[in-house]
Amino acid sequence: MQLAELAKLLQCELRGDGSVTIDRAAPIESAGPGDITFVANPRYQRFLDGLAASAVILPPDAPEVPLPSLRAADPYLVFSKVVELFYRPTPFPPGVHPTAQIAATAQIGSGAAIGAYSVIGDGVRIGRDARIAPHVVIYPEVTIGDRLVAHAHVTVRERVRIGSDVVLHSGAVIGSDGFGYLPADGGIRRLLQAGDVVLEDEVEIGANTTVDRAMVGSTVLRRGVKLDNQVMVAHGCAIDEYSMLAAQSGLSGSTRLGKWVRVGGQVGFAGHLSVGDRAQIAAQSGLSTSLPAGVTVGGSPAVDIARWRRMVAGSLRLPELLRRVRRIEHHLGLAGEPERS
Amino acid sequence: MQLAELAKLLQCELRGDGSVTIDRAAPIESAGPGDITFVANPRYQRFLDGLAASAVILPPDAPEVPLPSLRAADPYLVFSKVVELFYRPTPFPPGVHPTAQIAATAQIGSGAAIGAYSVIGDGVRIGRDARIAPHVVIYPEVTIGDRLVAHAHVTVRERVRIGSDVVLHSGAVIGSDGFGYLPADGGIRRLLQAGDVVLEDEVEIGANTTVDRAMVGSTVLRRGVKLDNQVMVAHGCAIDEYSMLAAQSGLSGSTRLGKWVRVGGQVGFAGHLSVGDRAQIAAQSGLSTSLPAGVTVGGSPAVDIARWRRMVAGSLRLPELLRRVRRIEHHLGLAGEPERS
Amino acid sequence: MQLAELAKLLQCELRGDGSVTIDRAAPIESAGPGDITFVANPRYQRFLDGLAASAVILPPDAPEVPLPSLRAADPYLVFSKVVELFYRPTPFPPGVHPTAQIAATAQIGSGAAIGAYSVIGDGVRIGRDARIAPHVVIYPEVTIGDRLVAHAHVTVRERVRIGSDVVLHSGAVIGSDGFGYLPADGGIRRLLQAGDVVLEDEVEIGANTTVDRAMVGSTVLRRGVKLDNQVMVAHGCAIDEYSMLAAQSGLSGSTRLGKWVRVGGQVGFAGHLSVGDRAQIAAQSGLSTSLPAGVTVGGSPAVDIARWRRMVAGSLRLPELLRRVRRIEHHLGLAGEPERS
Repeated sequence: MQLAELAKLLQCELRGDGSVTIDRAAPIESAGPGDITFVANPRYQRFLDGLAASAVILPPDAPEVPLPSLRAADPYLVFSKVVELFYRPTPFPPGVHPTAQIAATAQIGSGAAIGAYSVIGDGVRIGRDARIAPHVVIYPEVTIGDRLVAHAHVTVRERVRIGSDVVLHSGAVIGSDGFGYLPADGGIRRLLQAGDVVLEDEVEIGANTTVDRAMVGSTVLRRGVKLDNQVMVAHGCAIDEYSMLAAQSGLSGSTRLGKWVRVGGQVGFAGHLSVGDRAQIAAQSGLSTSLPAGVTVGGSPAVDIARWRRMVAGSLRLPELLRRVRRIEHHLGLAGEPERS
Repeated sequence: MQLAELAKLLQCELRGDGSVTIDRAAPIESAGPGDITFVANPRYQRFLDGLAASAVILPPDAPEVPLPSLRAADPYLVFSKVVELFYRPTPFPPGVHPTAQIAATAQIGSGAAIGAYSVIGDGVRIGRDARIAPHVVIYPEVTIGDRLVAHAHVTVRERVRIGSDVVLHSGAVIGSDGFGYLPADGGIRRLLQAGDVVLEDEVEIGANTTVDRAMVGSTVLRRGVKLDNQVMVAHGCAIDEYSMLAAQSGLSGSTRLGKWVRVGGQVGFAGHLSVGDRAQIAAQSGLSTSLPAGVTVGGSPAVDIARWRRMVAGSLRLPELLRRVRRIEHHLGLAGEPERS
Repeated sequence: MQLAELAKLLQCELRGDGSVTIDRAAPIESAGPGDITFVANPRYQRFLDGLAASAVILPPDAPEVPLPSLRAADPYLVFSKVVELFYRPTPFPPGVHPTAQIAATAQIGSGAAIGAYSVIGDGVRIGRDARIAPHVVIYPEVTIGDRLVAHAHVTVRERVRIGSDVVLHSGAVIGSDGFGYLPADGGIRRLLQAGDVVLEDEVEIGANTTVDRAMVGSTVLRRGVKLDNQVMVAHGCAIDEYSMLAAQSGLSGSTRLGKWVRVGGQVGFAGHLSVGDRAQIAAQSGLSTSLPAGVTVGGSPAVDIARWRRMVAGSLRLPELLRRVRRIEHHLGLAGEPERS
């Protein structure tokens, strides 16, 4: 495809030679002749010198470059559309594989593709155009909307309720028992986890992520929630619309996140917390108290991110600070540690 | 069921109208007419005003409430019994599914339910009344006691030994190879992991949790140990009776936990440590030294929890402290940083 | 086997009675008559008194012991060879199980063992002597070298490219979609993850570890990279030869690790970082900036390990420091907190 053609399709400004041929979208580190790439993150600006790609997507105000460029307010978004244009999908075998075990009482909508050895339990209802890979296990009485995508080794436990346009990646477990115990009679009593899980439309669940069922009621992920790989959502949590959690983060029981919350990787939340809409939580933070809407926090225990940065800067100066206090004490003839007060 | 009837069954004091009908156990945030709920955690006290539930379970000394209440020393425990009373279990299909691959040399006790496509290897012995979901893989020479519950996509590797009343959640891997390597000949030599794993009676293993086999000897989880989801137990570890580890915690090789140890989420233990009975470890702690019995610790590296709280409080005041030291130096005419001593 | 025979086989110096019979390699905590064990870690020195083992492997310069010993520069390495000598492998059933679903267009080399219900997609190519457990799913167009070992419930997504002598443990997911989204039109736009994953020769992937495919180009793990269990490698990362990551560590997108990097457990890396060869990163560290070659760092945010230890030591003295500064202020008649400057 000629670059000029691409510019027209993507409604971008073209600078330089529009006649070059573009065969592929490539990352900037390895882009060569025939490739188009992009720079949005300033860290990658340094790759522009000597770039062997045939074209690059840049912000409108980025400096001129020797190679042809497309200009767009969001180069990453435009690049992602180029990726889609050149993508050759691996075909998903259509139809229901003869080895798929589908209960007689299950109802599957039209257009479903169901892979080898998948198991669909009694009373399950699935909407139209499901794409279920081999080795997916759906326990009884689960309901699922249209256009489900479930990859190999997904488990959906009994009575989970799933909306439309949901994507479940390999190894994800939806509806495992919550971790509920009480000491009793010299041992430990297991508390029945009788609730369920609700995943609303457009939820996406990463590989090997686990979402536990509630003890009573539901663990709820509202429309558009995205969980990365190896995230843990405990029983009774609720995550509101379009919140996103990066990999290896975990919520303890009954914690609630508002809408459009952004959670970095390896963050931990104590139980019974409430986090307001659009809060942002830096990677590796630890939350032990609730948060109002709109804040940005970091650290464990987490505090306002600017304060956290000052604390970190202060920590780096602690050895120096100790020396300075020692000098002052020496200067004043104050020796030894004072009494606790 | 009438509330008075419930009070009698559960041996609780009834206050208020015992004739109300209870249909369901529900969480306090969503309890409505026909529901019974409970308050144990003081955070939830605020929900009592305007609660639309038909009844609530409270501690004996909690204030009077307008709606009928049951009074119990442990409201959570009593609530869990109500949950059991109202629970309608999803039936587990009885018998051995014709597609289950059971080796001719395997011995399975009476009363087993084994789901579609599960694979049970040579020489495996399983006790009575096993409930094995579809897609469970048990490698050869595994021994398992009575009443196993194993959910979809569980893997039990060769020669693992499991007691009775053990529950394995989806995606759990028991007996994977320990992470043992040595640099050798310009590359890395893999060390054979020839040992096994022992799970004693009443152990419960969370979804996608991994317990590695020992290099030699056994990785051991003693009676009643409970691991939440995504916990990692490395080769050669030993966890004593009734210890509980919350989600995403990890033990490095050969670390030993005593009895009734409580470990919060996302805690990490270095290798070759020993933790005494009834130690409690706050979430996100990092343990690099052994701990005596009975302590409560927090932080990374972990210290006594009270000390850790003072350290955190001190850290929050670090920017202020720097300003105060600067003022003192200015007052005394001491400029610049002192020499390192 | 007699100890003298073992000494000869392993080319070790023998001290003491070479006629004792050795039946087994055992860990020091439980070694008894007939067992050989080893001490390399000084923490285990204390077990030498009263050791009931029949022999022990020690460094040449370790003190004399009452029981017979083998002496070796690397006792752990020699012990691992003893483990191999006594190991009785659980046989892996040879041949292709009749229930394995192998696409007509897949090419499998000679000597393959493929377990029950495994699924191998269209156009997959696998080299010689593969050992594929039951319940492995390999999506279409994957290429794999010789001597693959893949355990139960492994998922390899489409177009992943794998070298020779690769080991994939249970529940590992190779090639899951990267976590790529952009806010768009009041919701969230999913970015197509069109790239792949490359695992070079001798790579080993731990149980329930996830390696995401790149958005474009490849996520690459070079020769000999070893990932422990529950590690997360995000889209577009590159890890160079022989680097090792301990359990529950995670890399954000496009981060690059050099050769022979050692990463402790539960470490987190921000995205777009570059870590130099032979860097060492302590457990639970958090990396938010790139690192040069050869450094050793700790903490979150990570700094030079010696500096980090001084910071930790300083943090422990923070409550004391606050008291000392208060005493100085009192001494000087400086009350209250100074103005922010």
